[in-house]
Amino acid sequence: MTLNALQEAQIQQQQANKFSTKRPSVDSLEAILFQAIPMLDHGFIRVVDYMGNDDAIVQAARVSYGTGTKKVSQDAGLIRYLLRHRHTTPFEMCEIKFHLKMPIFVARQWIRHRTANVNEYSARYSVMDNEFYIPSPQELAAQSTKNHQGRGEEPLSQEEAQEVIDILKTDSAQCYQHYEQLMNTTNEGNIIDPNKKGIARELARMNLPVNIYTQWYWKIDLHNLLHFLHLRADSHAQYEIRVYAQAMLDIVKQWTPIAYQAFMDYRANGIELSEQGLAIVKRMIAGQKLSQEESGLGKREWNELMATLDLAS
Amino acid sequence: MTLNALQEAQIQQQQANKFSTKRPSVDSLEAILFQAIPMLDHGFIRVVDYMGNDDAIVQAARVSYGTGTKKVSQDAGLIRYLLRHRHTTPFEMCEIKFHLKMPIFVARQWIRHRTANVNEYSARYSVMDNEFYIPSPQELAAQSTKNHQGRGEEPLSQEEAQEVIDILKTDSAQCYQHYEQLMNTTNEGNIIDPNKKGIARELARMNLPVNIYTQWYWKIDLHNLLHFLHLRADSHAQYEIRVYAQAMLDIVKQWTPIAYQAFMDYRANGIELSEQGLAIVKRMIAGQKLSQEESGLGKREWNELMATLDLAS
Amino acid sequence: MTLNALQEAQIQQQQANKFSTKRPSVDSLEAILFQAIPMLDHGFIRVVDYMGNDDAIVQAARVSYGTGTKKVSQDAGLIRYLLRHRHTTPFEMCEIKFHLKMPIFVARQWIRHRTANVNEYSARYSVMDNEFYIPSPQELAAQSTKNHQGRGEEPLSQEEAQEVIDILKTDSAQCYQHYEQLMNTTNEGNIIDPNKKGIARELARMNLPVNIYTQWYWKIDLHNLLHFLHLRADSHAQYEIRVYAQAMLDIVKQWTPIAYQAFMDYRANGIELSEQGLAIVKRMIAGQKLSQEESGLGKREWNELMATLDLAS
Amino acid sequence: MTLNALQEAQIQQQQANKFSTKRPSVDSLEAILFQAIPMLDHGFIRVVDYMGNDDAIVQAARVSYGTGTKKVSQDAGLIRYLLRHRHTTPFEMCEIKFHLKMPIFVARQWIRHRTANVNEYSARYSVMDNEFYIPSPQELAAQSTKNHQGRGEEPLSQEEAQEVIDILKTDSAQCYQHYEQLMNTTNEGNIIDPNKKGIARELARMNLPVNIYTQWYWKIDLHNLLHFLHLRADSHAQYEIRVYAQAMLDIVKQWTPIAYQAFMDYRANGIELSEQGLAIVKRMIAGQKLSQEESGLGKREWNELMATLDLAS
Repeated sequence: MTLNALQEAQIQQQQANKFSTKRPSVDSLEAILFQAIPMLDHGFIRVVDYMGNDDAIVQAARVSYGTGTKKVSQDAGLIRYLLRHRHTTPFEMCEIKFHLKMPIFVARQWIRHRTANVNEYSARYSVMDNEFYIPSPQELAAQSTKNHQGRGEEPLSQEEAQEVIDILKTDSAQCYQHYEQLMNTTNEGNIIDPNKKGIARELARMNLPVNIYTQWYWKIDLHNLLHFLHLRADSHAQYEIRVYAQAMLDIVKQWTPIAYQAFMDYRANGIELSEQGLAIVKRMIAGQKLSQEESGLGKREWNELMATLDLAS
Repeated sequence: MTLNALQEAQIQQQQANKFSTKRPSVDSLEAILFQAIPMLDHGFIRVVDYMGNDDAIVQAARVSYGTGTKKVSQDAGLIRYLLRHRHTTPFEMCEIKFHLKMPIFVARQWIRHRTANVNEYSARYSVMDNEFYIPSPQELAAQSTKNHQGRGEEPLSQEEAQEVIDILKTDSAQCYQHYEQLMNTTNEGNIIDPNKKGIARELARMNLPVNIYTQWYWKIDLHNLLHFLHLRADSHAQYEIRVYAQAMLDIVKQWTPIAYQAFMDYRANGIELSEQGLAIVKRMIAGQKLSQEESGLGKREWNELMATLDLAS
Repeated sequence: MTLNALQEAQIQQQQANKFSTKRPSVDSLEAILFQAIPMLDHGFIRVVDYMGNDDAIVQAARVSYGTGTKKVSQDAGLIRYLLRHRHTTPFEMCEIKFHLKMPIFVARQWIRHRTANVNEYSARYSVMDNEFYIPSPQELAAQSTKNHQGRGEEPLSQEEAQEVIDILKTDSAQCYQHYEQLMNTTNEGNIIDPNKKGIARELARMNLPVNIYTQWYWKIDLHNLLHFLHLRADSHAQYEIRVYAQAMLDIVKQWTPIAYQAFMDYRANGIELSEQGLAIVKRMIAGQKLSQEESGLGKREWNELMATLDLAS
Repeated sequence: MTLNALQEAQIQQQQANKFSTKRPSVDSLEAILFQAIPMLDHGFIRVVDYMGNDDAIVQAARVSYGTGTKKVSQDAGLIRYLLRHRHTTPFEMCEIKFHLKMPIFVARQWIRHRTANVNEYSARYSVMDNEFYIPSPQELAAQSTKNHQGRGEEPLSQEEAQEVIDILKTDSAQCYQHYEQLMNTTNEGNIIDPNKKGIARELARMNLPVNIYTQWYWKIDLHNLLHFLHLRADSHAQYEIRVYAQAMLDIVKQWTPIAYQAFMDYRANGIELSEQGLAIVKRMIAGQKLSQEESGLGKREWNELMATLDLAS
C-alpha cells in the first residue's frame, strides 16, 4: 500500500480527533476509524465516517411496526426476522463512508452498484500516480487452479507466472512514462521538454491501462452495502474485488454485529430453491430416490441442486 | 405537539447520551439533537443522527479535483463554487436523519422525493393515534389572502373560518370514533363490544381522513435535502409542508453553515433566465426600452420576467 | 369501475391507433393496450405503453456476456439462468407504463417502491371525484376468515359486515359533501353559497378519507416490476393491493411469457433456506428425524421451515 | 466505425422489422431506428427502442394537474411551462434505449449518471476487440487551442501531434498484443503456444489502456437524459463525450421536438443568476455603472457574470 506523506499526516490528524457526541457510536468501529487497511499491492480501505448501529435498525423497525413488534421482543430476534423476510428499509437507516483505493478495472465493476454516493479522483484535473496492480506469482498460481471464468485447473508454471508479471510490469511502466511524455510534465510537475507543449491531462490519461490505481470516497447505506457484499464477497466474484468485499464484511461485523450475523446466516450462506427444487427436496425428505430424468429438471439445474445439497449428481 | 410519555422518556434518555467519537461533529447540531421541534398543531421535527459537515464536502471535492482545486484555496470559496456550478456529488457526502410527524396529506407530497430512506408508522400493524391537523382561524385567514392555488384575495370571514374548523373537527372526531368501532377496539386496546368481531386494522384505517398525523424516520443526503428544500420551502409550496421545510433550512444552517449560505445565495434566492430572457436583459442593460410585443416573449413569460426584475409588466 | 365520458372517448381513440413500427412489439399485449381492467369497485389498470419483450432481455444479456453465453444457446434457458442467478440488469431493459386508479391507502403502499416514475392526479389543483372504496360484504367475510394481520378466523357475521359497510358509506358521503362545502363549490364546479368564499382545494381535501380513489401514470422497468409483484402479489400483502398485483402478473404473462414463467418458478413460488435450514434439510434427506430442540432453530423459525417443507411442526 | 459482420446483419434484420402497433410512434425516429451513427474513430450510437413522445409528456401532466391545466391550453405551451418551472416528472414518462460504443475513459464518465439501465460488454467473459481511440491530428490541434483543462492556447505543432498519435498507437498495439499473449489465445480464438496455459480473460484485460472501445445498452428516461445532455453537451465537457451528447441532442430533436426546443431555450442556453447577481443586473438595468469592487462579488464570480452578460470585466 502506498499512502503519500500528505495522506499519512491527514490520517494521524483524523485519528487524534476526540469529540463528544450524543449520536449512537460504536467503539469497535471507532477503533479502526480512518485506518488504511492494505488491499492488494497498493490499495486500501478506510472507514472515514458512519451513522447508526444495530440499535438504529431496531428503532426504525419499531416505528414501522409499532405495537405489532411486541411479539418479537428481543432486538436480535427482530433484526434477524427483518433480514429473513427481506424487510429491508430499516437497514437503510445505517450509513457508512469509505475512502477506497483500487485498480480501475475493480472500480469499473464497483460503480455498477448505483445506489451509493461517489467522489472519484479525477484524471481530467489531476495527475494519476505511478501505481499499478501487479498480481503476485503465488496469487496467479493459486487463482489458476480454480476452474473459474476460464482460468484452468492446473496451476500456472512458475515461468509462465513470471512472464505474465513481466509483461504487466513492462507495459505499465512504459504506458506511464508515455503518459508523462504526452503531458510533457513529470509526476512531480516538472516540464520535460521546454520546446514542447504537451496535451491535456484528460487526453493523456487515455494511454493508461486499467490496472492503474484510482481512489474515491464511497458512501452507502447498510442495506445496499449488504447487497453489494452478497454479490462481491461471493466465490463467483473476481478475486481482486472479492478481497475488498471480504475486508468490508469484517468491518460490518465490527459495526453492526447482529445484522452481520443475520446476513451471513440467511443471505451469504443461505440458498434459494425453485418451486421445482423445493418439490424435489420434499420427495427426498420423504425417502424417495430421484434421478435427474425423474426430477423434471434440466441437467444444469439438477447439478446445481445436487451441489447445493452436497449430493452426488 | 403531542409526544406520548414513552417518546418523552426516550428523548430524555437520548439527550443524556455522551459518547466519545473521532467522527466529524457539529456542536450547534448536537445542541438540538433529538429535540422535538413543534410543527403545526401536533407534528414535530427531530434530528436523530447526522454524518459529516462542511469539511466533509470539501474533503470529497478535494479527492475529486485533486491538485486541480489548489486555485480555490479557501474552503468556503470551494463550497460556493461547487454549488454555483452544480457539482453536486460532494454534497451527497453529508447525511442526516429525521424523525418527523406530519399529517398524511403532507406525507403524501413528501414521499414523492424518492432519493431518501423511509420507515413510516404502519397503520396495517398499529393503531393510529387520535390526532388530526386542524388549521387555526388566523392561519386560515392569513392563507386566504394569498391568491395562491385558488385561495382568494379576501381574507376568510371569522364566521366562515370557524365553520371550516368546525367541519374538520366534527368529521375527524366522527371518523376516528368509527375507526375504533370498526376495529371493535379502543385506542387503548379495549374491546368495545364483546359480541362483535371487528375488522383488521389495515381495513379499518381506510375510514381515516388525510389530516390525521403519521410519523416516520427519514434519512437523506445533503444534496437531495437541498433539492427537497428548494421545492418545499418555496413560496409556491403548500403552507403545511412549507413550515417543515423552513424549519429544516434552519437546521441545515446549524449543520453546514457554508453550504447553507451558498444554497440561499445561488439556489433559493437565485433565478434562472432563458436564452430569450438573457437576450432581453442584455438589451435592457444596454439602455433599450422594450415592450412585451417587442420582446418576442409570450405574455405569461414576459410577466414572469418583469416580476423577476422588479419591473412593471 | 367508473370511467368518465372523457376517458371512455380517449380510450376508444387510443385503441383505434394503428402505427407502423420497427420496434419489438407483442401482439398479445397490443390486444389489451389501453383497455381499462376493472379493479375493486371503482378502480382500474390500463397498460398505456411498453418497451421491449423477452427478446430484449436476451439481447441485452448477450451484449454483456458476449461469447460467454454461447453455452446457454436457448433464449428461454438464458432468461431462466439470468433470473435464477439474480443477474438482474437485462430485465431492466424492458419498460411498461400503466394508468392506474386505486384508493389512496393502496397508493400509499404502492409509492414506497421508489424505482418508478409517477404522475399522480393532484388534489391541490383539481377536484377529487366522489368515489370511495367500499368492500363488498362477501369480501369482508372472506377476508375475516384468514387469520392475517388481526383479521380473525371466524367470518364476520352478515349483520356486522353490513354495519361496517354502512359506516364506511356514511362517513365517505359526509366527508365528501363537506369537502364540497369547504370549497364552496360542487363537484361540477357550481358555487354553493354566493356569500361565502370557500377555501382552497389543497386545504379542503384534508377532509377526505383514504378510501377515496386517486389515479396516476406509473412507469417501471421489468426487474423492478417483478420485485414489486413479488412483494405485493404475495399472500401477506393486503388484499386491496394484491388484486392489482395479481392482475399485473397476468399482464406480464402476456408481455414477457418466458420471464414470467422463470419468475413464478424461481421467485414467486421458490423459497429461501438459511445456512441452518439447509443443514437441517441435508440431515433430513439423509434420513434423520429431527425435533425443534435438536435443530438448533428457534421455535418461530422451525415452524416456518416445517411449513415450507409441508411437514408437521 | 467498426461494426462486425454479425452486427451488420442484425441491424439489417432489425430495420426490416415492420409491426403494427397502437403505441405512440414517432416517424422521424423510426427512420433512424437501429442505424449506427458513427462516433469518433470506432464508436457509434444506435437508437434501438423508445417509448412515448411529446404527447406522452402532456398526457402525464394533464393527469397531474387535471382541470388546473385548462389555462395552458396549448400542448407546446404546457411542455415549455413544465420545463421552465422544473416540473420534471412528466418528462420521465418517455424512455429511450441506445446501443453505444465508446472508449472506456468515456464510459467511465458516462456511468457516473446513475439513473439509467446499463448492460455492458463484459471483459470478464468475452475477449475485447482490437479497437482503440486515436485522436486525429486535426482534432488534437483544434482542441489544444481551447484553453480548457490545461490544454494550452497555442495549437499543437504538427510534429508534436504526430508524436502523440504515434505513442498512443504503439502502446495500444503492444498492450493488445500482450493481452492476447497473456490469454495465450488470439482474438479469433486460436491457441498461441500449446505449451502454455494462459491466464483468464478477467485478469488479462488489466493490461488494456482506457482508450480501448467498450459497448453497452443504455436506457434512460427523457428527464434524466436531458440532465445528462445538459452536463455532457456543455462546452466544459470533454470533447470525446461531448460528441456523443451532441449527436444525442439531435436524436432528441427528432423524437420530442417540443421538449427539445424548451430544453435548449430554458436549460442549455439559459443561465442562472445568484441573489447578488440578480441585484447587480437590476441596478445595471436601472442605468448604474458598477465595478467589481462596488458589486460585492468576488473577482471570479464577477468575471463569470460579466461573461454571461457579454460585458467587459
